Amino acid sequence: MDIIVLKPGVTDDDIRHVVKRLEGKGLKANISKGTERTIIGVIGDTSKVSEDEENAIKAIDAVENVMRIIKPYKLASREFHGDGTVIEVKGKRIGGKKIQVMAGPCAVENRTVVLSIAGKVREAGASFIRGGAFKPRTSPYSFQGLGEEGLEILAEAREKTGLPVVTEVMDPRDVEVVSRYADVIQIGARNMHNFRLLLEVGEVKKPVLLKRGLSATIKEWLMAAEYIMSRGNHQVMLCERGIRTFETATRNTLDLSAVPILKQLTHLPVIVDPSHAVGRWDLVIPMARASVAAGADGLMIEVHTNPEEALSDGEQSLKPDMFRQMMDEIRAVAAAVGREV
Amino acid sequence: MDIIVLKPGVTDDDIRHVVKRLEGKGLKANISKGTERTIIGVIGDTSKVSEDEENAIKAIDAVENVMRIIKPYKLASREFHGDGTVIEVKGKRIGGKKIQVMAGPCAVENRTVVLSIAGKVREAGASFIRGGAFKPRTSPYSFQGLGEEGLEILAEAREKTGLPVVTEVMDPRDVEVVSRYADVIQIGARNMHNFRLLLEVGEVKKPVLLKRGLSATIKEWLMAAEYIMSRGNHQVMLCERGIRTFETATRNTLDLSAVPILKQLTHLPVIVDPSHAVGRWDLVIPMARASVAAGADGLMIEVHTNPEEALSDGEQSLKPDMFRQMMDEIRAVAAAVGREV
Amino acid sequence: MDIIVLKPGVTDDDIRHVVKRLEGKGLKANISKGTERTIIGVIGDTSKVSEDEENAIKAIDAVENVMRIIKPYKLASREFHGDGTVIEVKGKRIGGKKIQVMAGPCAVENRTVVLSIAGKVREAGASFIRGGAFKPRTSPYSFQGLGEEGLEILAEAREKTGLPVVTEVMDPRDVEVVSRYADVIQIGARNMHNFRLLLEVGEVKKPVLLKRGLSATIKEWLMAAEYIMSRGNHQVMLCERGIRTFETATRNTLDLSAVPILKQLTHLPVIVDPSHAVGRWDLVIPMARASVAAGADGLMIEVHTNPEEALSDGEQSLKPDMFRQMMDEIRAVAAAVGREV
Amino acid sequence: MDIIVLKPGVTDDDIRHVVKRLEGKGLKANISKGTERTIIGVIGDTSKVSEDEENAIKAIDAVENVMRIIKPYKLASREFHGDGTVIEVKGKRIGGKKIQVMAGPCAVENRTVVLSIAGKVREAGASFIRGGAFKPRTSPYSFQGLGEEGLEILAEAREKTGLPVVTEVMDPRDVEVVSRYADVIQIGARNMHNFRLLLEVGEVKKPVLLKRGLSATIKEWLMAAEYIMSRGNHQVMLCERGIRTFETATRNTLDLSAVPILKQLTHLPVIVDPSHAVGRWDLVIPMARASVAAGADGLMIEVHTNPEEALSDGEQSLKPDMFRQMMDEIRAVAAAVGREV
Repeated sequence: MDIIVLKPGVTDDDIRHVVKRLEGKGLKANISKGTERTIIGVIGDTSKVSEDEENAIKAIDAVENVMRIIKPYKLASREFHGDGTVIEVKGKRIGGKKIQVMAGPCAVENRTVVLSIAGKVREAGASFIRGGAFKPRTSPYSFQGLGEEGLEILAEAREKTGLPVVTEVMDPRDVEVVSRYADVIQIGARNMHNFRLLLEVGEVKKPVLLKRGLSATIKEWLMAAEYIMSRGNHQVMLCERGIRTFETATRNTLDLSAVPILKQLTHLPVIVDPSHAVGRWDLVIPMARASVAAGADGLMIEVHTNPEEALSDGEQSLKPDMFRQMMDEIRAVAAAVGREV
Repeated sequence: MDIIVLKPGVTDDDIRHVVKRLEGKGLKANISKGTERTIIGVIGDTSKVSEDEENAIKAIDAVENVMRIIKPYKLASREFHGDGTVIEVKGKRIGGKKIQVMAGPCAVENRTVVLSIAGKVREAGASFIRGGAFKPRTSPYSFQGLGEEGLEILAEAREKTGLPVVTEVMDPRDVEVVSRYADVIQIGARNMHNFRLLLEVGEVKKPVLLKRGLSATIKEWLMAAEYIMSRGNHQVMLCERGIRTFETATRNTLDLSAVPILKQLTHLPVIVDPSHAVGRWDLVIPMARASVAAGADGLMIEVHTNPEEALSDGEQSLKPDMFRQMMDEIRAVAAAVGREV
Repeated sequence: MDIIVLKPGVTDDDIRHVVKRLEGKGLKANISKGTERTIIGVIGDTSKVSEDEENAIKAIDAVENVMRIIKPYKLASREFHGDGTVIEVKGKRIGGKKIQVMAGPCAVENRTVVLSIAGKVREAGASFIRGGAFKPRTSPYSFQGLGEEGLEILAEAREKTGLPVVTEVMDPRDVEVVSRYADVIQIGARNMHNFRLLLEVGEVKKPVLLKRGLSATIKEWLMAAEYIMSRGNHQVMLCERGIRTFETATRNTLDLSAVPILKQLTHLPVIVDPSHAVGRWDLVIPMARASVAAGADGLMIEVHTNPEEALSDGEQSLKPDMFRQMMDEIRAVAAAVGREV
Repeated sequence: MDIIVLKPGVTDDDIRHVVKRLEGKGLKANISKGTERTIIGVIGDTSKVSEDEENAIKAIDAVENVMRIIKPYKLASREFHGDGTVIEVKGKRIGGKKIQVMAGPCAVENRTVVLSIAGKVREAGASFIRGGAFKPRTSPYSFQGLGEEGLEILAEAREKTGLPVVTEVMDPRDVEVVSRYADVIQIGARNMHNFRLLLEVGEVKKPVLLKRGLSATIKEWLMAAEYIMSRGNHQVMLCERGIRTFETATRNTLDLSAVPILKQLTHLPVIVDPSHAVGRWDLVIPMARASVAAGADGLMIEVHTNPEEALSDGEQSLKPDMFRQMMDEIRAVAAAVGREV
């Protein structure tokens, strides 16, 4: 905490009580008595003051509010690592000049379909193949993914196309098996606050793609990245995929302002997933263009050869020819903003 | 209303009651009895069924829900006017190939400042000058605008630069005076649901720029346009300026997906105001680029020669040199998407 | 503004620039140099510093953020008027021990219906009759109210029942006529930010019921009350009616926590309108009970003798027998919390 | 899915394509051709149609929208189990006439504090002791809980006071150890969508308290309950704890309307946690009263003997004397609504 606002009418004893507490933590207090309020500026290494200590100070009767100036994340902050982090995966650099496109079906359904899609997206210029072997579904009665069999299919798709694999892990107990097959481990939006899972992927040596939670603030999202990084895995990329708002015309509201904000706050690469954000294939291309124009380092796009037969999220999948058109369109936008696809 | 879902266990009498009501409005009922529910498909010109009639049917005991298929707006809908509407203002076409940039200070503060800003934005390539003579402010103690004196300053700026003027009206009693000076009348976000004001600007012969309300759905926004158009003024353009969400890193959340959705739903031109959406000048340029990439027909941008002395919203204003840089950057993006600036 | 946080790495010149600006406004600066940031505590009567001045300071390059400690509203604040305000309307006291119930149809449709409803709600124990003669409707094609004819019907209902009348005004030009008939003038949710209308009702001598905007924060709501009060009309009561969130199971989300918060922040009476908040008659009674338990000073309830024939909002109206049941239930809850109905 | 809306201008072939697909699933189609749209009512046991099949139909080109009438949850629905479920825990019945109060510290910090708090809340009339041994914290640098040692302390508190224990599990790997100590297993808001954890607690024989996710709709929340129940554990209670909205005056917005809605939709008991919802101790008592008035079956309340020394969430904890006052106040409200505490 950095600024402590005291309630109107506090006594000198109240002030001393707070100051003593700060001094007990090795900090100094700079007291400003205003006409209505007294404010305490906290001097010293306040970054070492925990969230718990902050809450405890808030609970002191004489304290009206505590305002932190120092960001609660450290390893994820731009200050920690001035240059942008570039994550290298099988020769593909995420966070560099080239915008990386991760494409594929929502769920891995069967070998034939996945291999066919993988071939098509590679042809069109995608750099990664994506697909879920473990699927978080709102209904227990929906298809939950093929599990390890799905991972094997993805591995075969990688072998055939040369495209590295991005795939999701949902359970700390599956981190080992997923990291055996995946090139990039995805943490889905519904697990952004699954702290145990974050710690577990913090222990592996694979890059992590961390999706933003449905109602996560940018600060909370960076704190989730900090969880992973605090265990030693600094290869984290952030993926904006829409937030939950009152608007129902799209599945979620794609928060593209998050891209330039993240570029200021953190050194980690930023990916955008317009498919999940809008939930309708016919809006994916313009939002892919806008993502690139806003400064994204990569895109995650759902592609399916036969959306009507997809076991999950068919309505937001591009068919291969639309995906090719998208690649052409973002190539032009990327050039206009000094990037390439 | 188009589909009426009845509650489980309704009797034949209940069904007859609803059918009779529909027939009384000149409509026919197609009844589907399912295993759990009975559903009534309403056949006939349901677009003539009012919101009131819909609510009345919802209030019938046997009715669980009413779902409208037909859109409640007509004049604003794409079906009404297949081609996009192009609004011409002193030779500048809004909704055509060229992206129009409206730039200027938030509030009209004094003659010298406004004339200076107007000159700078014209030089940099803006096509309209914007500025508020009547200012909606959250505090009654804040600067409320210069009123008619402000309008005169804007008129002088137009004379000096040749740029048409966009300025806001807040009160039905001011519509006459504002439309005497303005080339485009702006309805601000806080007045999108000020129905009397909408009707009043529906009576004038000047184009209207209708900003989206802070928490307005796209459907409500189009209904607000419909209010204006229902009085005969079809020259309406829509301006996305951010919606209110839980995220506090930006003042509002710019909902860029609204751009391609509007392009499907309506024939009206779509403008984006990134300055008010993000509330921070350092995010304006990337969001301006993204707006153009998403398909916007125009941009509204705050520019101030000395943001520190601005009487309103200085923190989100670009200085003239940054504005020039923005123009260069969006010119490149516009070319990449087949438009021009 | 009360606390100014400077960016990391500011120079002494930067600090002097800010200090000079403050001194120019008659304020003093208390500078705390921390290890990472410099913070300026502003001393003096910062309540006189306007929102505009605050924004201007935010626009200074060296400034990272400005945090206000002093509330921006004064007349509406609890500090201004330690005891709760009691508004007296024809012998009924709003804000005292007795909880006042305002009941009636959404819209005034015709004489017979309104007189019938007025009689029924009076019998059941309501203290005010409510009903709209001017109706804000999302569609221009919906029933817009009877206008002055509706006001006359309300006046007749008052005469017959002795119940004072609460009715809405939507347009500054109608304030005169509405205040001639109404005992309490209502500002609807969609007009909470219609500042010109607020100023206009600030000039009349009638109490005002100010509904919370769909996405208004509590602070903005109190600022809207401040608008009215700043013109001399201190008889303002606040009406919580649900806010817009992502949840679609209810029309809006009733924010009952607002009741005890308002009791801390302001001296103005607090009313709750559960009918508009939930939008379904079958949830009105439990939410009316909860409102009373949370500390509301009054309730606004929609009642209709024949919801199926109502021209507006039939699906959320209680029939008279349900309204009577509600009155019985809230009477018990009121007694439990030391109030009466 | 139950109603399929086709796009304007579909051909008979398009219609046949959809009908054939439905027939392939053993369903029948009732076709209504309107003047603008064709609508297909789906007849048969549509509850067996999965979310996946629904998405696949949405992906058909000719389909504009699919509307489900049947609720996606079954075991959790009121229809499945007409009477309310009563969960019995060591002689305490949750969901019956008596309102159960679960009280204690946010986190289990040390033996002495927990035993002291447990004694105080028991004296004041609480029926359960709550406290976290595994704590989900937004920062990896915050106190994460004592783990099994914390569970042992809770068990000792139970032994000393006779109060059954409610405590959280965050990780599927901890379900075994937590269910060995706990009487009620809590799933926190951040884990409501942790589907693997839900399935795991679905396998144990202990009651589960399922908190609502920060941005979960009521439907999604019931689907999370369905996950647990689908594995055989039907002893689920739902706990409303505030949702995330734009309002910042409270930590979250307590959605009390959810209580009567849940009473209609599901047979499961409903608990309210006002402490986490409002995040400020001084609002807990009025919101506890309102929760009881709205129809809650129980309350979860944070209590701490010394909030200033609490390691987590001190600012929202009641001191024991305030908790006693709360118990007195809710006892009166409970009596007013025909319940008891």
